[in-house]
Amino acid sequence: MKATVMHAAEDVRTEEVPDPGIEAPTDALIRIERACICGSDLWPYRSLEASEGARIMGHEAIGVVEEVGSEVSTIKKGNLVVMPFADSDGICEFCQEGLQTECVHAGFFGNGEEGLGGAQAEALRIPYADGTLYTLPTDPDEALLPSLLTLADVMGTGHHAAVTAGAGPGKSVAVVGDGAVGLCGVIAAKRLGAEQIIILGRHTERTDLAREFGATDVVAQRGEEAIERVKELTAGFGAHSVLECVGADPAVQTAIEVARPGGAVGRVGVPQSEAMPGGEASFFGNITISGGPAPVRAYIDDLLPDILDGTIEPGRVFDRTVNLDGVPDGYRAMNDREALKVMVRP
Amino acid sequence: MKATVMHAAEDVRTEEVPDPGIEAPTDALIRIERACICGSDLWPYRSLEASEGARIMGHEAIGVVEEVGSEVSTIKKGNLVVMPFADSDGICEFCQEGLQTECVHAGFFGNGEEGLGGAQAEALRIPYADGTLYTLPTDPDEALLPSLLTLADVMGTGHHAAVTAGAGPGKSVAVVGDGAVGLCGVIAAKRLGAEQIIILGRHTERTDLAREFGATDVVAQRGEEAIERVKELTAGFGAHSVLECVGADPAVQTAIEVARPGGAVGRVGVPQSEAMPGGEASFFGNITISGGPAPVRAYIDDLLPDILDGTIEPGRVFDRTVNLDGVPDGYRAMNDREALKVMVRP
Repeated sequence: MKATVMHAAEDVRTEEVPDPGIEAPTDALIRIERACICGSDLWPYRSLEASEGARIMGHEAIGVVEEVGSEVSTIKKGNLVVMPFADSDGICEFCQEGLQTECVHAGFFGNGEEGLGGAQAEALRIPYADGTLYTLPTDPDEALLPSLLTLADVMGTGHHAAVTAGAGPGKSVAVVGDGAVGLCGVIAAKRLGAEQIIILGRHTERTDLAREFGATDVVAQRGEEAIERVKELTAGFGAHSVLECVGADPAVQTAIEVARPGGAVGRVGVPQSEAMPGGEASFFGNITISGGPAPVRAYIDDLLPDILDGTIEPGRVFDRTVNLDGVPDGYRAMNDREALKVMVRP
Repeated sequence: MKATVMHAAEDVRTEEVPDPGIEAPTDALIRIERACICGSDLWPYRSLEASEGARIMGHEAIGVVEEVGSEVSTIKKGNLVVMPFADSDGICEFCQEGLQTECVHAGFFGNGEEGLGGAQAEALRIPYADGTLYTLPTDPDEALLPSLLTLADVMGTGHHAAVTAGAGPGKSVAVVGDGAVGLCGVIAAKRLGAEQIIILGRHTERTDLAREFGATDVVAQRGEEAIERVKELTAGFGAHSVLECVGADPAVQTAIEVARPGGAVGRVGVPQSEAMPGGEASFFGNITISGGPAPVRAYIDDLLPDILDGTIEPGRVFDRTVNLDGVPDGYRAMNDREALKVMVRP
């Protein structure tokens, strides 16, 4: 089959690779209907060393089940399914608590982990199919597919940031980052009832979309100026809830410094340093730091109805669609910030 | 009056200083009945540069009100009061939320901050007396004074660690640090109903006291070995709630690494680095980091009845009593770990 293989930084190729097949009785095989390129795929795109090994990329998809192993019971051949970015066995205590990304068997798709393929491909083997996959209603309106695809990662991840930051009625929310996750964070904050939603970003076409999603204010400044501006917008104290949707050190530092004393930061940007900036500021401000890899599998029950009835439209973050041959250029376009988020239609 | 003045690291002297007096109409003047030396006083004891300026030390006391300013309304001359380690105006939005340590007027006593004296002295001026001081029942049994004194800091601080770490029924709790705050953290975790309480510490006389306070397990190892041992004691996953009661980087790192995925760390040890160790581990573990300077003023309502009826006895952390002339040697004894916590009876 065709798949997207990253060999090293800026070396992404569409290649023929061996077809995946059922390996364990709990596996399913899905045919990819829609996949996409994630902002987090740009980290290896900028830094992967050839010595780290080539990997099939992609961790977000909706697909159709083609085959299931003998122990798969709830997922059936022909089901349209969401494939969250991590697999999960569905039965361990973490899965039972709704924290599937901490599953004792969890791994991240498209990350080069042994035995886990990637979704920017024609097909993919899904371990622990019953625990990992989520069955969607049959034959949804095709116009809904982009939004349904965001349930695999960015919408659930923005929601995790908002939930762990305590966004809700009467709260001021600041969203650090205007990528797809930040924009989904705006949708999530609005959906949870936040009163004021400030997005920090400098790409007008993205912050314009953020306003359509519910942002009340845009802060285009960076660093100290951004912090000052957020404080001005929040009676001098900062935001109750801050969604950190970037992961780079300066963004984490800003997220902590725009938080109100006693407030909370929900981190979903993959951290780029072992130590967390702002550890002293967060302590003296009694600021709670929460978040991590989002248990998007757990959030689908909550978010799906709002997508099906059109209340939220996270699929609007996609501004380009490519086929598998177009994926390498899709990486380039996202890295050059020419595209916000690229959908892949194999 | 006599007061304890720290001039530089290891240079603590009992000196004559000018008597404090009412300066603002919201001030009160208290005569110190009991004060004490805090583990956090040992940080400047080890590192204060003479160029940073001499300071009157001490931020924990109970005292008797000697005089009040014209705008003080609830605090009366003759009241026996707890003086929390930070002052607070009692009326700002943070005070109203019960987060007095984030009061817009908050400052830390005994920290060299302008206009704020220290409690290791005969008397002390208290700004915002109505918001800062807490009136105790008149004439309590003298045997209760040590425990009442802990409401000024260590008991409230241990409680803050336990609350922000989510300690409660059915939870496993790990307490990093066997100083007075760690021991009070054990009391707090037990009081909140935790099922398992593991204390990490290597001073037998302290961990023995921890067992009397409710610790179910003691881990005397450090670093990787300590992490392994806590995991063994918690079904392999780590503790739901971790109380970080030290502040040094290795302790913070250990606190994060002994937390269960999805668990929480309540930090009350004053951090010794700007960046927080374990920022990546906490992210990938979906571990919540919370805590900060404890709003001990807010917790007194909750904790006081249990002290008055003997349910909890945090005053047992004091193992030495000195008068003001004995304070310099008290610092030496605590720094040498000859004493756990030194009470000062002026």
